[in-house]
Formats: sequence, structure tokens, C-alpha cells
Amino acid sequence: MKTGRTQVKRIPKRGHYDLETIYSILDAGFICHVGFVVDGQPLVIPTAYGRVDNRLFIHGSPASRMLKSLQQGIEVCVTVTLLDGLVLARSAMHHSMNYRSVVLFGTAELVSAQTEKQQALYAFTNHVMPGRWAETRQPNDQELKATTVLALPIEEASAKVRTGPPIDDDADYSLPHWAGVIPLSMQTGAPIADPKLAQDTAIPEHIQQYLSKHSI
Amino acid sequence: MKTGRTQVKRIPKRGHYDLETIYSILDAGFICHVGFVVDGQPLVIPTAYGRVDNRLFIHGSPASRMLKSLQQGIEVCVTVTLLDGLVLARSAMHHSMNYRSVVLFGTAELVSAQTEKQQALYAFTNHVMPGRWAETRQPNDQELKATTVLALPIEEASAKVRTGPPIDDDADYSLPHWAGVIPLSMQTGAPIADPKLAQDTAIPEHIQQYLSKHSI
Repeated sequence: MKTGRTQVKRIPKRGHYDLETIYSILDAGFICHVGFVVDGQPLVIPTAYGRVDNRLFIHGSPASRMLKSLQQGIEVCVTVTLLDGLVLARSAMHHSMNYRSVVLFGTAELVSAQTEKQQALYAFTNHVMPGRWAETRQPNDQELKATTVLALPIEEASAKVRTGPPIDDDADYSLPHWAGVIPLSMQTGAPIADPKLAQDTAIPEHIQQYLSKHSI
Repeated sequence: MKTGRTQVKRIPKRGHYDLETIYSILDAGFICHVGFVVDGQPLVIPTAYGRVDNRLFIHGSPASRMLKSLQQGIEVCVTVTLLDGLVLARSAMHHSMNYRSVVLFGTAELVSAQTEKQQALYAFTNHVMPGRWAETRQPNDQELKATTVLALPIEEASAKVRTGPPIDDDADYSLPHWAGVIPLSMQTGAPIADPKLAQDTAIPEHIQQYLSKHSI
């Protein structure tokens, strides 16, 4: 996993190359930032994703410029970043953030086999919320045809993680300023039912489980 | 603001080009994803930022590959994405996310004047937390010299925003599945004092104000 491209160069102690760390960050995020080059111009596009084993899937309309470009086998860089806290130091210069990020290099491959496409769509849906796939109307042949799915191998990847308190200069520890970490996390609010939903539709078990795990 | 590069091509109704929308998204985010090209290879690096008027500042060590590359005046794409909710539709295919994102194109400029550098560092620190700058040890000349600050003009930028309920196919509205939005937001947890902090150090007013605004 550690190659010339993926090696964490600045502050190497923050670098991680084991799959467990990389997968756990990918599985905890919702949105990746896909970087690619069109006519020399870098583009960074946020998009949803799903993971199955050592492959990261992205998808969208066949008309998407991003998907049309990536299908040509050009180099891609996909980055997922999770923010975990604001690191408040005694000195302005040592302010930082606690975060987990993954940077992944490679080229995308068009997923065309029907069963594999179905598997990717399962991954997208259950990545949004575990258990969701089984409680929806699943894609029909026409929908599958109208969706482009691309796969990126999770091979050349690295994670970068910052945790813990601020690191101040020795001389600054005697200053009176409060220092520490303000933890941040994504929390759910109360579900907002679709106005077109029948009024007596109960919130199903898989959503209740999700809410109980992701609200303070 | 609307140029060939920034025009939102897919689902144009989600595109916004007014500065108020763009600034409000930039001011609400903590991390931007900086896209640039080195030897044909796209790189997407997460980093903190600050905004002063129509300029976005990033900073770091003079040894940073990103900052060294960008200083050469190469094309940059900076993207900030805020996730607002999981959009659960009746059909798997119409699952989505509510989000706000800004995509910004341009080239970076090295900030070398001492006063302007100071202004940028003020912006970084107070972007992490309003009021923080005044309650820290501010940068000395040596620190300012040891920090590279780059500015990107917020000129060629666009915002993309999705809000509201899922949009299902007409035939699917009669299905029994729960549909709606699970709101998501970044929330603060209880502050974790630096273990090296004197035990009687009170949490100052600017942090308490922040916590009262950003916790449920």
C-alpha cells in the first residue's frame, strides 16, 4: 500500500497504510472528493460512494462529465475526510484539527455485469443506511441500464489520522489560555417524513437503530 | 461567477452563483479539498482554510508539497462540502443526500507581506472558533516566517445545494416504505481539556458561546 504516491510525507507518524484503518475510515464517511484532470484542469467533485471488499464504487448518470472522464481510464485521486475535533492550542500557530482521512490513487473501471452492478447499488444504499436496501423498491433493469457504475481498486491508498491534545511550544505551557479539544461528530436530527408519506407510516426498525447510534 | 468551468451542468437547478451563498458555505465549513496536478497526477488534499472578503487562504509548512506546487501558479480546484442529511426514498435508485458544496477554480498567490500574513492567520484561527485569536499567544516574527500562506481569489466559483424530501417515481409513491430526510449536522461534544492544562482553568466565554450554538 505504501508507494511513492501514497507515502505520507509531512508528519510521517500520522500515516497509516493498513487496510483495517483505511476501510474503517471509508465505511464511516458518506462523501468522497474525486479528483481528476480534464484538459489540464484539476476538478474535485464531491460524490457518494460504497465499498465492497477492496473496491470503492461511485455511480451516477451516464451524462455525468466526471463519470465519462473517469471511464477513459485516466488517473484519479479519491479523498475521504472525517472531522473529529477542533484542537485549540495556547498559541495561534498550533491550532489544528483532529481528523481521519484516506487518499486513494488509481484508475476506475466500468462495471457492466448486471449482478456486479446490483451489488454496487446494494453497497451504495446500505452505505447511506445499514438495512435500507431490503426496505426499498429495488432497481429494475431499466434503472440499472440508466446508471453508470465505476469501481476503483483500494490498493494504492493511505490514511492520515490526527488525534489527541494540542502540542504547544514548551515555553507556552505556562500561559493562562484554555487549551484542549472540542470533539465534533455528525449527529442525526429528528427524521423529517416526506410530505407525501401516508400519515400513519411508522419509522421502521433499521432507521430507529441508526438514530439510536447516531444521536447524542 | 458563471463561466464555462463553474457552470453546474448536471441538474442545473441546484446551481448557485451568488456570493452570499458561496461565502456562507465557505464560512460554515472547516476543511476544504484542494485539487492540483503534479506530473499529470491529480492530488486531492484536505486542509484547513480561512476567508477574508473575496480571498480564500490556506497555509502550512514551507516544506509542504501542496504549497510548493501551488506557489508555482498552477491551476487549482478547491471544494468545500457540507453534508446536511440522508435522503431516503421509496426506491433504492432515488436515495440521495442533502448537501451544500462550493467548487472554486483559480491559481494561488503567495502572501508575503507581514501584515497580510497576520490577517490570514487571524482568519484561520477565528475560522476554527470565533473569538479565539484574542485568547491565544499570537504569532511572532519567526513563526510568521516559517509559515507559507497562499491566497486564492473567490472569483470563479459555484455552489451546489440539494435540500428537501426525496423525489420518487410517480408509481412508487403508493409503496409502503418510509421516506423522508434524516438531518445530519456537526455537533460538539464536551470539551476535553489538555492534560497539561492547570486544573482550575475555566472554559472561556468564546468557547462556551460556541458550544451553546453547536450542540443539540
